[in-house]
Amino acid sequence: MKLNIAVLPGDGIGPEVTAQAVKVLKVVAMEFNHVFTFQNALVGACAIDKTGNPLPEETINICKNADAVLFGAIGNTKYDDDPDAKIRPEQGLLGIRKELGLHTNIRPIIAYDDLLSKSSLKSKQIKDTNILIYRELTSGIYFGDRHLSDDGNIATDICKYERFEIERVTHSAFKAAQSRKRKLTLVDKANVLETSRLWRRIVKEIAPQYPDVRVNCTYVDNAAMELIIKPRQFDVILTENMFGDILSEEASVIVGSIGLLASASIGDKHAMFEPIHGAYTKAANRGIANPIASILSAAMLLDHFGLDEEAAIVREGVGKSLKLHITTPDLNNKYDNISTTKVGDFIEDFIQNPDETNLN
Amino acid sequence: MKLNIAVLPGDGIGPEVTAQAVKVLKVVAMEFNHVFTFQNALVGACAIDKTGNPLPEETINICKNADAVLFGAIGNTKYDDDPDAKIRPEQGLLGIRKELGLHTNIRPIIAYDDLLSKSSLKSKQIKDTNILIYRELTSGIYFGDRHLSDDGNIATDICKYERFEIERVTHSAFKAAQSRKRKLTLVDKANVLETSRLWRRIVKEIAPQYPDVRVNCTYVDNAAMELIIKPRQFDVILTENMFGDILSEEASVIVGSIGLLASASIGDKHAMFEPIHGAYTKAANRGIANPIASILSAAMLLDHFGLDEEAAIVREGVGKSLKLHITTPDLNNKYDNISTTKVGDFIEDFIQNPDETNLN
Ligand SMILES: CC(C)[C@H](C(=O)O)[C@@H](O)C(=O)O
Ligand SMILES: CC(C)[C@H](C(=O)O)[C@@H](O)C(=O)O
Repeated sequence: MKLNIAVLPGDGIGPEVTAQAVKVLKVVAMEFNHVFTFQNALVGACAIDKTGNPLPEETINICKNADAVLFGAIGNTKYDDDPDAKIRPEQGLLGIRKELGLHTNIRPIIAYDDLLSKSSLKSKQIKDTNILIYRELTSGIYFGDRHLSDDGNIATDICKYERFEIERVTHSAFKAAQSRKRKLTLVDKANVLETSRLWRRIVKEIAPQYPDVRVNCTYVDNAAMELIIKPRQFDVILTENMFGDILSEEASVIVGSIGLLASASIGDKHAMFEPIHGAYTKAANRGIANPIASILSAAMLLDHFGLDEEAAIVREGVGKSLKLHITTPDLNNKYDNISTTKVGDFIEDFIQNPDETNLN
Repeated sequence: MKLNIAVLPGDGIGPEVTAQAVKVLKVVAMEFNHVFTFQNALVGACAIDKTGNPLPEETINICKNADAVLFGAIGNTKYDDDPDAKIRPEQGLLGIRKELGLHTNIRPIIAYDDLLSKSSLKSKQIKDTNILIYRELTSGIYFGDRHLSDDGNIATDICKYERFEIERVTHSAFKAAQSRKRKLTLVDKANVLETSRLWRRIVKEIAPQYPDVRVNCTYVDNAAMELIIKPRQFDVILTENMFGDILSEEASVIVGSIGLLASASIGDKHAMFEPIHGAYTKAANRGIANPIASILSAAMLLDHFGLDEEAAIVREGVGKSLKLHITTPDLNNKYDNISTTKVGDFIEDFIQNPDETNLN
């Protein structure tokens, strides 16, 4: 297969972790006789520094012409501390999601047996947790109009949802549930929000088309608690943009490190694959960033093109690295922490020689 | 002291737990020579059933004429499942918050030593956690305009904040931090929301007036994770209405049961005290509801009127009941679960005879 992949490393630890994912994709291409080409482009704070624009026209074009986008991370603490900044790195990420129409963000939350002890939660609490979060990604309060009054004393953000925006991600979530444990939980705040009531109405309307899927609805405050006290009750979680942001980052505690969480952002024409973690400016260039979230995002990219065997071997390599503690400091208590690059090297080696890679 | 207390038991388990708090307040009045009078009023689903209105005029008047309000819980699953219901029990709760101008909601999150093992989190993770959440309660997306298009296909909710709304709760939170560990964390989503940027700007403006308090700002998605992996890093958390709703219910996992979380809702003229849990229709009238959240809300009521000794003995009684496992099934694994009323009786006895109450 020929794939033209746009690579947007972004800021902070983005470039380091993305480099490992690219390395892994390259060795997959070699081993399985594919032709993957990579084209880099600027986004985020580094794009502002070089072009004044967090999402240059050229980056949009490169992404639109690519078969898929591999995204690193964006953000820089210097903007976080300045609420008055007019140009912000996040506009790069939100802009690319919008430009490419990436309306459906999929975030798997899996408790790996080898990592149970790393979680803040008790092992028995999280063992066998396997949740797929479907987050709506191009609407809601993220993309509604905003306003600040001239005197700077009144601010507003509008949360808006239209029927079709809810329908498309809902159908995807139901389909995913059908191939899993056939349970879908809608998370909303329908006791307060009109948009949530629209979500609830539409999900209930669509549900009869998927009679094999059990549906339940829960309020976001309750879901934030239930995720921690009974994570195994969830199979597919469907939710709007902001609640999905909060719940998916919260759910990282089940996995043990946010450095492990991958995501796929799917639209009608385009697809982007990105770790859910941020740019962690402070950790940049120290070789301590966990590349697994980015490597697993590359595995989701392979899934997306039906390259099942390829995706499987990447995941096996990741699993092996976790089992053998070939992991960065977020997961390792030992002195001999493994660098970002070394973790990538190990998984690369595993893909080349799945039977021989065994450091034990 | 003379206190005229409006009691709004509400729905589900509300009446049962509130009855225990009233019992405790009555014995406090007796032991400390106060005159507390109680006046009941309708709110929520039961008010709809009896009057067609979740917040009858009479209830508002009773509350406005009272020195304080003790609130139970509202909600009924029959409304949750009907997104088209025009009249909803939640309007009772949101209405009373607005009518009384209860802009500042305070939710303590305390990891009791005797309950560490009840949490889903590892004990070493949560030990000594003591967080005070300041949630803005009468503005934001809870009270902005909402709209549903005539064809029912487009819904909007507006999140709006004005400077004075942010300032008043911010000052209260800073003052609270001064008498604690002098750390204040603003939780927002300033990388996306205009309202969050206004919060961040105002908090930074006000900070120099409290030079002894360290301030930091964090994004809500990150906070949802950090609350679980490093809860001890927080002292006072300040946040807007919706984020406060989500984070405080999430934080209940630290305490071990949502049945333990009390809150105070303070306005310029009025004050209301309420458990943060809901109505749990399914648990109603079975004697299994935990009354401690309501009893601790009564303790916050006593705090509010400077009745420190009284509040302290109520908390001691609660502590003793936890230590001796005189607790409802949410906290007890044993067969001999204690009923809602028995827990209230125990704490009542303790207040009468602090030295003798010892079931061991
Ligand atoms: C960086 C930020 C704008 C982004 C979001 O809120 O969507 C991030 O938190 C995420 O979850 O991808
Ligand atoms: C019942 C509901 C409207 C309410 C809220 O969201 O504020 C509750 O969850 C709370 O936290 O007090």
